[in-house]
This record gives sequence, C-alpha cells and structure tokens, in this order.
Amino acid sequence: MREVAVLGIGQTKIEEQWDKSLRELAGDAALAALQDAGLETADAVFVGNMMSGSANHQQHLGAYIADWIGLRFSEAMHIETACSSGAAAFRSALLAVASGALDVALAVGVEKMSDSPGDEITAELATAADADYEAGVGVSFVAINALAMKRYLHQYGWRKDDFALFTINAHANGVYNPYARFREAISEKDYARSPLVADPISVMDASAMGDGAAAAILVPLDFLKGLPKSRIIRVIGSAAATDTIALHGRKDPLWLLAAEQSAKRAYSQAGITPTEIDIFEVHDAFSIMAALSLEASGFAEQGQAPRLALDGEIRPNGKIPIATRGGLKARGHPVGATGMYQIVEVIQQLRGEAIGTQVEGARIGMAQNIGGSGSNIITHILQAG
Amino acid sequence: MREVAVLGIGQTKIEEQWDKSLRELAGDAALAALQDAGLETADAVFVGNMMSGSANHQQHLGAYIADWIGLRFSEAMHIETACSSGAAAFRSALLAVASGALDVALAVGVEKMSDSPGDEITAELATAADADYEAGVGVSFVAINALAMKRYLHQYGWRKDDFALFTINAHANGVYNPYARFREAISEKDYARSPLVADPISVMDASAMGDGAAAAILVPLDFLKGLPKSRIIRVIGSAAATDTIALHGRKDPLWLLAAEQSAKRAYSQAGITPTEIDIFEVHDAFSIMAALSLEASGFAEQGQAPRLALDGEIRPNGKIPIATRGGLKARGHPVGATGMYQIVEVIQQLRGEAIGTQVEGARIGMAQNIGGSGSNIITHILQAG
Repeated sequence: MREVAVLGIGQTKIEEQWDKSLRELAGDAALAALQDAGLETADAVFVGNMMSGSANHQQHLGAYIADWIGLRFSEAMHIETACSSGAAAFRSALLAVASGALDVALAVGVEKMSDSPGDEITAELATAADADYEAGVGVSFVAINALAMKRYLHQYGWRKDDFALFTINAHANGVYNPYARFREAISEKDYARSPLVADPISVMDASAMGDGAAAAILVPLDFLKGLPKSRIIRVIGSAAATDTIALHGRKDPLWLLAAEQSAKRAYSQAGITPTEIDIFEVHDAFSIMAALSLEASGFAEQGQAPRLALDGEIRPNGKIPIATRGGLKARGHPVGATGMYQIVEVIQQLRGEAIGTQVEGARIGMAQNIGGSGSNIITHILQAG
Repeated sequence: MREVAVLGIGQTKIEEQWDKSLRELAGDAALAALQDAGLETADAVFVGNMMSGSANHQQHLGAYIADWIGLRFSEAMHIETACSSGAAAFRSALLAVASGALDVALAVGVEKMSDSPGDEITAELATAADADYEAGVGVSFVAINALAMKRYLHQYGWRKDDFALFTINAHANGVYNPYARFREAISEKDYARSPLVADPISVMDASAMGDGAAAAILVPLDFLKGLPKSRIIRVIGSAAATDTIALHGRKDPLWLLAAEQSAKRAYSQAGITPTEIDIFEVHDAFSIMAALSLEASGFAEQGQAPRLALDGEIRPNGKIPIATRGGLKARGHPVGATGMYQIVEVIQQLRGEAIGTQVEGARIGMAQNIGGSGSNIITHILQAG
C-alpha cells in the first residue's frame, strides 16, 4: 500500500448560491485545489454528494464534473454515504492512489441544497435514515437526533444549556473563516432563547444547510520528495465503519460504535493515541452528535463530553480543539460536501493557515464524518511533514 | 498492487419484484455470493445503484445493506456512475482489495425500478444526462440514443432492420438464463413489427427495466492457493474513462472515446489484444450502443458492427459472442445492477456454468458497462485459472 499525501486544497463559501450551478460550485473548489497543488489535471475525480438526483435533477456527478473541469478521459465516480459522502469520496480517492491504480486523484464534495424547497429537503435528508422503519413512519432526521439528545439529558443528568458551549465555540471560530455560512459570535443568552425545532433540539443546536464544495488533491507521498516539509500533509489513518441504519436497532443509542470502530482503526494505522491529536474536526450536525463523537473517539468518558466543553477544552487553545473553522454549525453543512470541508480545514491547521483560530503547533489532525444517525462513520488522521 | 480474484457470485431474477423490498433484493444476491464463496462475512460492501433516492426514498445504501445482511461494523459505500454504477462498485471493491486496505470485499449492484411510476422513471433515467442542456430541454434518455442511431444509419448506410440480429441473439440466449427478465426467442418479423419508441428506436431495440440485484466476492489472489484452478477467476484488467456528459459535446457522437480509452487500458493491463477475448458482455441498453461498444473496443471497424451481427459472429459459437445470457435486452437492465450482472455472467462462462449458451473453451471474458450516453465507461477483463 503506497503512502499518500494531500498536495492541494480548495473550497467555496457556503451560502445560498443562487448565481452558481452545481457544476460551477464543484468546479470552483476543484480548480482551486488543482491550482493550490500546482497541477493542471488529475487522473481521476471522486465526487461526494448526497442529494443531487432529487435536489438538482442531476446524477452521474463523476462524468458531469470531470467534463466541466476538462478532465477528459479521466476516471470519475460519485460516492454516497449520506452525510459522510465527503469523507467517503476522500477515502475512495485515497484507496485508488494507495493501490497504485492511479497517481493524481481529485476528491470533491459538493451539495447544492437551495434548489429544493424546504419540505422536499426534509424528505431528502430523511433518505439517510431507514425508509421503512424511520422516515416511512414520519420521523424526520432532526427528530431522530432529538430522541438521542433527550435520552442523553435524562440518562446523564445534564441540562440542555450545558450544550451551549458546543455552539458558542463553533460560532466564535466561524467568525474568522471567510468560507463560513455564519460569521457572527453568539452568547449563552442567544443559545438559551433559540426556538425549538424538535424538543430538545433548538435552532442553535442544529447545523446550517447551504450550497458549497470543497476539494483536495491526493498523490503518492513519493512524488513530493524535494518539497519543503511544511507543504507535505500525510494521510496516516483512514477507516470507515457502519452500524445499524436505524437508531432503534442499536443496543445503546447513545454510543457511536461505528465512531469507536473507525477511530480505533485509524489510531492503530497512525500508531497514535487520542492524546496525540492536536485538532479534531467533529461532525456537529447537532450538538448531541459532537458530544457522542468526542466520547466514542476516546476524548471523554461516556456521558461526559459536555464537561469538556464547559471546561473550555474544545476551544482552539484547549486540550482538544473542535470545529476550529466553525464546524457544521457555523461554517455550515452542505451535506455531501461537509466531509471534504473537514479535511480541508484540518489541512489549513496543519499548514498553519487557520487565520484567527490557528491551533499552535498543530501537527496531527483528525476529521470524523458521520452518515445518518451514526450508521456510517469515517475517520481520517493527517499529519504535517 | 495486489492481484485480485473473484471467489463467489450471486444474482436474483430480474422482474417486477413486488414481494421483495430493495434491501431484500440486494441481500438475496449478496448472501448467494457469500455462500458461493464459502464465506460468512466480508470486510466491506460496495453498492452500485442509480436511483434509490428518488425511486425508493432510500439513500445510504452502503450502511442499509451492510446492516441487513449482518456485516456489522464493516465498511460500506454506495457508488454511482448512472447506468455503469454496477461496474463502478465492482471497481471500487477491486481497488480496495488491491490496495491492501481490506481482504474480503462484497460488490453488489441493485435497482428496484417498479416502485416508481413510469413517468417518474423517465425523469429519473434522464438524470444520467446533462440536466441543463439535455434533460432540462425535454430530451429523454431514449431520445438521446435515438439521435445517435438515426445519425449512424444515415452516415454508414445501414437500414434499421440490419440491427435485428443484436436483439434476436440476445433473446435467443436469454431463453437459457433462469434469471433473465425475458425468456422468449424472437424472430426478424417480431423485430420488424415492433412499435417505435423514439424513431428509429423501437421496443425491440430497447432494453427492459426491472428489479434485480447481482453480487460478487473479491479477495486477494494469494488467498486462493490450493483451490482447484477451475474455481479461480482472476481480474486481469479494470479501467474506467469518461467523455463529455452531453452527447452533443463530442467531436464524433458515433465514436465512444471513453469505451476506446477504458478498453485500451484494460487490454494493456491484461497484456492481450481484442482477439484473445472469448466472450464480451456488452452494454446493449439500445442496439445502437452494442454496435458502438463493439467498434470502440476493437472488434469491428467504425460503422461496421452490424456486419458482425449479420455474419453470426456475435452468437455463442461466433468470433465474439455477446449478450450470452440475454444482455440488457433480454436478461434485463435494472440500471445500477446491470454492471454486476455482466460480471457474474462472464464468470459463469469462465467457470463453464453458462448452461445452454456456454462458449466452448472460454478462458478470457470482458464486461463493459456504459454510463449515460457514453460518458462513463468501465471495462473489466477476467481470466479463468
């Protein structure tokens, strides 16, 4: 298995992009990544996307985007694992380069949600859950997460307000990210008075939709001989694991076994323990998911993640900085693109380019992308130099 | 890059499967492949599917199917390249095993089209084309193929009836395939009086929709030491290439450059020429596509594929047998599953299990799966022993 490095990254601002088509969004991020890598073309493109078939009446995004950015005759595929499609595309690109089948792979995550009316988006998001036993009986995706959060508050004795700092940290960091959907800090009062979406999840617990794309160029590590060490970002861990698709199928709905499994495998590949992670881009689609991900990945005991937040340990100067460029909450969550934004942001940190929220001396970073209510979780660990 | 072999195959009958859900179909094929391989589990599942998000209100098919067949904690992804999604899933599984990231990979293609009303299916199929410049202006997928066929008849001076033998051969072979959608032979008269769908494409030029799933188990070749040679099927070529997504973007709309590119790469990997291919499972979604695929893959001069058919060379005892188990026309074309059916059928031939249409002495077989109107083409070459 060849060692793989990331040579270039690119992203677009997340917002309602009425002036850009799906292909323009993906193309902008892809071309930015190629430019950042100093390359003009790639052997293959792996596209992460969840809902273009319904939201944009366009499938076949591999050929669609390869065509748009001029990668004629390159290999191209669309990869989908619901909300973790971005990381799945990155992992597919990684395996292709690692296998030796090709040398330069472009991974791009893209989602254009604004083209769909709100009620349709809710139905489209629910296709990440079990159509027969969850979505089909009327449970929306936010409602599934609300069930988990309600149970968490009950089981571990936290108050809803104890989750405020996940949101406050994300928004405080998003202020410095020019690509973030929201760049306004929020207060505990803002969190407390935020209206409920599905009890106990309020607007301020839920990530923001949007249109956006993020991309990376993967190459064999060998190709980078002679480059300054500061430009070399190695992929030292990559693992994916699944759990039951329906939340109710799990023995403990408050423990993300797929996160535990994928993180463990990634740590083992990297030869490190969680204490060596300098920055963790977490999947805070809902604040409860940030907590469950921190716990299952080994950063807090079960039921104790809110303590990390209350102690200030998730801030850029804390023990385990998360959502350092705004996270899903403030940077935004264009579903199939999110995993690629996480990778791009980890790399910004490892390159020392995270202006305003740079984690000092960041050398090893982790990104964890969650599909569904925890049914498909992909963990990547990257290292500078 | 590790060499990879296929150890097990499985498939379901293609029909309107009102008694089976999407997961049951995929599960039936996957479990049959595991059983055929003599294995109980796999490290990962790669699912090829095109339209479950809209037709079945279910995305996230990786986790969905891994959960259903009990592959808890395994890796799982859904791969989509429109009509070539099945081959793309097989190639993803292949690269994962070749890279050394995992050992036992399950590739499964599944499509359940009957859940969608006919007009919706037409719109869903059109998402394989360019939403802005083809589908968006009202051109259906069959109409795009009709444009190509009309031009072909004009440019090379063939009559429509010269295409009859592609259909007659497919149906003659389908008679012997218990999994085929149609098991009735047809005559030249049946072909000639078949009603037009989009001039010059008639019902008898167009492949049949349906519900179905097909699967294969991929393992490192090294794992098979000691097995009888007859049970070893090696993957000796695998390549994917793209072209413009819209038909009108190509310099020559009658030459499948992506087929030429992917076939050339696959021949080169296998170290063979087209003359060494004993059987070719071709993507006869429309009879014109069978002709274009034969030409671009090196089996006929440009504009001359109908001659091959007229000379009887595409039959099981001909120079280049195609559609040996019925092809897309008679076996059926459950879109995202088709590429996996092609792989399964090539393997049946190489194992000597193609009852009724066995190609004598078949040792090397090729499968070519076409996404869109030729925009994403994936070629696999397999060898017995």
